[in-house]
Amino acid sequence: MTGPAPRTAVLISSGGMDSAVTAYDLADQGTALILLSFNYGQRQVKELAYAARTATRLGAAHHTVDLKSVGTLLTGSALTDTSVSVPDGHYSDTTMASTVVPNRNAIMLNIAAAVAISAKADAIGFGAHAGDHTIYPDCRPLFFDKVTQSIEAGNEGLLVPGFRVLAPFLHLTKADIARRGAELKVPFEETWSCYKGGELHCGVCGTCVERREAFTLAGVVDPTAYEALSGEVGR
Amino acid sequence: MTGPAPRTAVLISSGGMDSAVTAYDLADQGTALILLSFNYGQRQVKELAYAARTATRLGAAHHTVDLKSVGTLLTGSALTDTSVSVPDGHYSDTTMASTVVPNRNAIMLNIAAAVAISAKADAIGFGAHAGDHTIYPDCRPLFFDKVTQSIEAGNEGLLVPGFRVLAPFLHLTKADIARRGAELKVPFEETWSCYKGGELHCGVCGTCVERREAFTLAGVVDPTAYEALSGEVGR
Repeated sequence: MTGPAPRTAVLISSGGMDSAVTAYDLADQGTALILLSFNYGQRQVKELAYAARTATRLGAAHHTVDLKSVGTLLTGSALTDTSVSVPDGHYSDTTMASTVVPNRNAIMLNIAAAVAISAKADAIGFGAHAGDHTIYPDCRPLFFDKVTQSIEAGNEGLLVPGFRVLAPFLHLTKADIARRGAELKVPFEETWSCYKGGELHCGVCGTCVERREAFTLAGVVDPTAYEALSGEVGR
Repeated sequence: MTGPAPRTAVLISSGGMDSAVTAYDLADQGTALILLSFNYGQRQVKELAYAARTATRLGAAHHTVDLKSVGTLLTGSALTDTSVSVPDGHYSDTTMASTVVPNRNAIMLNIAAAVAISAKADAIGFGAHAGDHTIYPDCRPLFFDKVTQSIEAGNEGLLVPGFRVLAPFLHLTKADIARRGAELKVPFEETWSCYKGGELHCGVCGTCVERREAFTLAGVVDPTAYEALSGEVGR
């Protein structure tokens, strides 16, 4: 992030560790937060309760935007279409393409921008990171630049002066995020990654594998109970 | 529009005459249509029934996206905040600024793009015109270019080859739209413009004044019954 921290930021908050660390990081810098979660009919809808927990911990406002009527129109993604299975394997595998929800970040960021204008917030943000780039075209720096320009052009005269779109981890890895989260004492057990949305994290879907790897690479203790590891903690 | 008409287009359809003429125009060129309407808690929610009527007439699919939970977060606009009155007067008056719903077109177009990807449609479109530019920053050509680039960057590899964002009236006036609609025999009495959403069109709010003026300038008979004109038709 360049320049001083924003006064107020509207953050997209999925309940996962990337958005949690984004929120803790900004709160640590004194930014007032409005967390915005989205129910688009995703399998892992339980993640929203984790986002609410983060908001409570940080004394932030939290709103859940109901996009279920959009989700019903989005067939073909493993996250919104129950006829498509969630792939297991490494996060960078080509099979992960089935977890793409088309244009999701643009929809969420543009709604965040509208909320920011109403709330007179001077920033919006999300936790996309470099590991997302290969799978999700709407996590790449090119998209980030273009959506920022679209928001600026579409809301000229409405945005708070100095308004910024933040993606503090856009060029960092998830291991970097785990490391930063550990510094900030983020309670990682209060975050949810698994795409399957079961009782415990499955441990074998793409995002679970990525989560486990991030903690390992960062040398940070992973407090998550994974189903595939017999509920064993800390692997 | 450059090039041949798209095979399938997802159109933002408000129920107003601009989106109706956009739909009739594309249908006339043989494009299969999916009309997408949005309930964001607007006063004039009755417009959605008019969009449904257009879809029925054209044999098009019609979906209404429920964005009411977004609308509740958008305070300050006369269209979503009942504590702000709808201004009367000419459409180009500065008082019309209170009818801006922040970032509305970006939200709607980005949802349309997601639906287009799922439906394998090769276009999305909306009916913004030159008269909108002074009031609504998200109707200007600059915004149109930027949001198109954002959609392309955010969905690389997902969009149907040749995918386009259409705004066929972006550089035309509403009078041009009335003229084109008359050529296409659009039943204008099946379109709704008034921001107040009463029993009849009020005839004096910004968008009613603009509607009346468009018919007058185009020399097209206006079939609308306006409350302020004692229900008289054709003024």
